[in-house]
Amino acid sequence: MQTKKTLCRFILAAAVSVAALPAFAQQNSASSDSVMIKKLFDNALTSQESYENLRYLTKNIGARLSGSPQAAAAVEWSKQVMDKMGLDRVYTQEVMVPYWVRGDKEIGRINNSKLIGSADVNILALGSSVGTGTQGLSAEVIEVKNFEELEKLGKRKVKGKIVFFNRPFDNTHVRTGAAYGGAVDQRGGGPVAAAKLGAVGVLVRSMTNDMQDVAHTGNTRYEEGVAKIPAAAISTKDAEKLSALLKDDENLKFFMRMTCETRPDVLSYNVIGEIKGSEKPDEIIVVGGHLDSWDVGEGAHDDGTGCVQSIEVLRLFKELGIKPKRTIRAVMYMNEENGLRGGRKYAEEAKAKGEKHVAALESDSGGFTPRGFGMDGDKAQLAKFTSWKPLLAPYGLHDLLAGGGGADIGPLKGQNNIALIGLIPDSQRYFDYHHTEIDTFETVNRREMQLGSASMAALVYLISEHGL
Amino acid sequence: MQTKKTLCRFILAAAVSVAALPAFAQQNSASSDSVMIKKLFDNALTSQESYENLRYLTKNIGARLSGSPQAAAAVEWSKQVMDKMGLDRVYTQEVMVPYWVRGDKEIGRINNSKLIGSADVNILALGSSVGTGTQGLSAEVIEVKNFEELEKLGKRKVKGKIVFFNRPFDNTHVRTGAAYGGAVDQRGGGPVAAAKLGAVGVLVRSMTNDMQDVAHTGNTRYEEGVAKIPAAAISTKDAEKLSALLKDDENLKFFMRMTCETRPDVLSYNVIGEIKGSEKPDEIIVVGGHLDSWDVGEGAHDDGTGCVQSIEVLRLFKELGIKPKRTIRAVMYMNEENGLRGGRKYAEEAKAKGEKHVAALESDSGGFTPRGFGMDGDKAQLAKFTSWKPLLAPYGLHDLLAGGGGADIGPLKGQNNIALIGLIPDSQRYFDYHHTEIDTFETVNRREMQLGSASMAALVYLISEHGL
Repeated sequence: MQTKKTLCRFILAAAVSVAALPAFAQQNSASSDSVMIKKLFDNALTSQESYENLRYLTKNIGARLSGSPQAAAAVEWSKQVMDKMGLDRVYTQEVMVPYWVRGDKEIGRINNSKLIGSADVNILALGSSVGTGTQGLSAEVIEVKNFEELEKLGKRKVKGKIVFFNRPFDNTHVRTGAAYGGAVDQRGGGPVAAAKLGAVGVLVRSMTNDMQDVAHTGNTRYEEGVAKIPAAAISTKDAEKLSALLKDDENLKFFMRMTCETRPDVLSYNVIGEIKGSEKPDEIIVVGGHLDSWDVGEGAHDDGTGCVQSIEVLRLFKELGIKPKRTIRAVMYMNEENGLRGGRKYAEEAKAKGEKHVAALESDSGGFTPRGFGMDGDKAQLAKFTSWKPLLAPYGLHDLLAGGGGADIGPLKGQNNIALIGLIPDSQRYFDYHHTEIDTFETVNRREMQLGSASMAALVYLISEHGL
Repeated sequence: MQTKKTLCRFILAAAVSVAALPAFAQQNSASSDSVMIKKLFDNALTSQESYENLRYLTKNIGARLSGSPQAAAAVEWSKQVMDKMGLDRVYTQEVMVPYWVRGDKEIGRINNSKLIGSADVNILALGSSVGTGTQGLSAEVIEVKNFEELEKLGKRKVKGKIVFFNRPFDNTHVRTGAAYGGAVDQRGGGPVAAAKLGAVGVLVRSMTNDMQDVAHTGNTRYEEGVAKIPAAAISTKDAEKLSALLKDDENLKFFMRMTCETRPDVLSYNVIGEIKGSEKPDEIIVVGGHLDSWDVGEGAHDDGTGCVQSIEVLRLFKELGIKPKRTIRAVMYMNEENGLRGGRKYAEEAKAKGEKHVAALESDSGGFTPRGFGMDGDKAQLAKFTSWKPLLAPYGLHDLLAGGGGADIGPLKGQNNIALIGLIPDSQRYFDYHHTEIDTFETVNRREMQLGSASMAALVYLISEHGL
């Protein structure tokens, strides 16, 4: 579009949303809150700093799985960034993390297919998976959509085979997280269920809405007393291909080679920066993301953005000279992806020290345009939270929902009636990139990410001023 | 994010939004409307057809400026696509369009700079601009932020120079359209204002929020009796560079070479597909986009998505067996970018035939996640429109605003109390791509675009059922 008329309408639409402000501006506090929130958004939308932080974290450090040298670099870097900000305190928390290493690039190959003979496919070992040995593994494939189907097949049909979990995302969900939630049991629980029936390996359709060549990794689980069998994600396009070939030829063979392994635990850290509260310093508000990422791609949306957004909340407070009534802590958690050790450690220490947390807010659903927040809190907290809607709606934050949080802040649940809150960004593109080599800096739009930073700062500001 | 807890919260959040439905499901009509709207979204989100249409239009046809062979191909293609859909009528409307041709790749070069000597910069001729002649044009540069500043400089300081309009987007606007609206006067009015003071050329800072190397074209205007001087957009990065160099050395020279020209008008077409209304066939609802694009890139967001979304609305009705009470027309307008001849022609014919249009809905702000609609209508229409909020909000359509429309449907204003409506997608990324070589298929996410298609279909359905 380009003409004058369109422009006028654009300006008109903007004017309408601004005109909505005076309605609640009658109350002094709401009025000063709305002024402060506007300042937070104005500053965030015009600042490059947070985006440059993301560039460094993703491009200069890159993928940073727990225990890796890059994870150590991310710890040192985030500490240095916050050290320069003139905060009241910057410190680390020791945490022992698992150290899983992918090894050689995986090989996945369809063999002996009556229709096509042999073809390479894109696979990626699931996190925590054992390897196949350097000789690789070759077996027939049995496809299932769910655990019930697998159970029905029984040992006789499963033994010695590779179980191929191929239930796709349900694309009718408007929120992609719901589709992920309806499919990811295959990734987490596939290997144990398959091994119990004597399977020798597992392939899991990649967790994405998209039809892609890229495979999506992510953690899987083993159980004491059940054989640990190698498990890999296969790209959605190759999952379709394999499924089609199996229909004509159930005796085709699949070859997979993975040299991944779990090494001894490594000492790592949560990194924490703090602005002390001016009136109630003992009441703490956490804003956080996780510093670790998978070992492919650059961990941009998962969860580089959550980290730099959390640091940005502190920067905005400092830059605008806001002295929060309550203490604000930005926490970069370690090891969300394959252990959650950082989140647990933070909660343990908080409990041991008798710290009082009012709320914890996590950003771990990507750096996309924010649509609102989800809160896990009691009735009174939810009422207060939703009373802020008129202050947040002008920025497109319409979804103030019950139910929410984040993996890293989950272990804090139950401490001092803490409210757990998750930022809800637009979810459409998240699972295009999630846990892949294409989760890169270039897929993050500065403005979308900064609207998220400002939204987080606005909510933290309101909680800091008014409690929860 | 990955853990079980996060998933549960995701599912919970989804459950909450579904739980909101029964509140208005008490009314039978609202209930059947909500069921139908769910069907529209389910089908759109699981269908690939519209996205494949976009792929063809952008990849196989590509950029399609009015008058070009590609614009003719787009006319033929969209007619063929609709011909295969079993619609009640597919037809074209003749329209004579301007034919502007870019010619050789532009050259833009800073010369004789005390600091750096010479450097090439990225420029792109503005649409409708005259060329410089094959020898190019070299002159000193005078930078201004607005027309007042230019006026103050006066003929003495402007004569013989290239006027460089360098007022950036105001990034504090949450809706980027407002920032565009606050800057684009430079592009449209720059050449006339500069020529009146004796300038020999114009450079305009590209219309984007982003700091980029890519220059953004777009139409400019000349006036009878004022010298036509060549005008080009310069990338935001190079605008910053040029501005910095001018501060140290106001005598540097700028060389620009453009061989663009306007050729005689060409016969082209609007393309229209129609489903006849079952109860009120004479009441027409238009849903449209524009088929032409700029001559760089692929015209994906501007406005390939609007075209394939409009066709998709008809496909959804056919596929789901919906017999609309009122007539629905998908209109692919020709020549939005540099003349609006298609929009004017459509309105003229509608008037001449005495057609009664109830509403016209345009999608011309990109194929991003929809946030709502803006409507230019009377009080009663706006009341009915906003009464549908409970039906649309579950799909993230919270912004049902007064004021809206689109360039192509603008000429219909005033006919039979027609309501003019514009789809409002998330605007953050639109001006990253707008009118550039990077407005490509790859920047469009299938789900985001299809949420838009379904939103349009839902609103068209409601208007078709209940009038407006």
